[in-house]
Amino acid sequence: MEGRGKKRGKIVLAEGTFDLLHYGHIHYLTNAKRAGGKNAKLIVIVARDKTVERLKGRKPVLPEDQRRAIVESLKVVDEAILGYEDMDMYKVIEKIKPDVIALGYDKINLEKELKRYVKERGLNIEIVRVSKFDSIEPNSSSSIRKKIIEAYQSQMSRDKAP
Amino acid sequence: MEGRGKKRGKIVLAEGTFDLLHYGHIHYLTNAKRAGGKNAKLIVIVARDKTVERLKGRKPVLPEDQRRAIVESLKVVDEAILGYEDMDMYKVIEKIKPDVIALGYDKINLEKELKRYVKERGLNIEIVRVSKFDSIEPNSSSSIRKKIIEAYQSQMSRDKAP
Repeated sequence: MEGRGKKRGKIVLAEGTFDLLHYGHIHYLTNAKRAGGKNAKLIVIVARDKTVERLKGRKPVLPEDQRRAIVESLKVVDEAILGYEDMDMYKVIEKIKPDVIALGYDKINLEKELKRYVKERGLNIEIVRVSKFDSIEPNSSSSIRKKIIEAYQSQMSRDKAP
Repeated sequence: MEGRGKKRGKIVLAEGTFDLLHYGHIHYLTNAKRAGGKNAKLIVIVARDKTVERLKGRKPVLPEDQRRAIVESLKVVDEAILGYEDMDMYKVIEKIKPDVIALGYDKINLEKELKRYVKERGLNIEIVRVSKFDSIEPNSSSSIRKKIIEAYQSQMSRDKAP
């Protein structure tokens, strides 16, 4: 397996919703690919609409096909695929056979789960978490939504004023 | 000038705000580059925050540095630069010396202005407008904002209900 890495570059798997693209996403994906070293190939799993709705209680603003196409149009991304509806990471791991799984900075529980899974099965997969990029605002899809709603509220109160 | 195009590919200039990236942006930029033929180089001017505020009456959600960096992280884009604050396309044209200027589908007036400018000066620049991509929703930054505000209003009325 070590030799394989030298020849063709490691396969890195990253994942997320990628609704309302901001610089934090680019930062995450760039560092995810970097975690695979030279000639790494970055494959990104984009969460299905139904998965997002189930986990976050609301639909994404952009539909899954658009989110996938936008992620795949980024220079740093080699391939973007839609996840399974039940977001079973293990099915994806079996299919992709990554050398590295690079998670977002806040995926602490998922990191623990994956490390346990990999250890139990004796798989040669490195699990890493990428540091947060927080020097630029807005740096999350929820802060983008918040900013839009605040601008709308401020507009409404200006319109109501005599 | 014809020979130059064969050797190094044409330089295509595109422009926009690119706040809240959606698939319409990718469509526009892909077709803009295509308008330059084989080996074209796509340079994108990203509008300054102050220009957007002056023309549209509100600030973009994402600041100009983020918008520029996100546009430059797209595969189809070779270079993204911030515009001049007064959005003087003519200064940009003098600097970049494009072979083609590819405008968004709705830039009808700008197309007329640029065609007149190019004709008056006898410049060898082709001005094209790219067709709209409207088969996927949301396909504009304003429809993204609308969707977020509607979801917020619907949430508010659910919270108020007994």
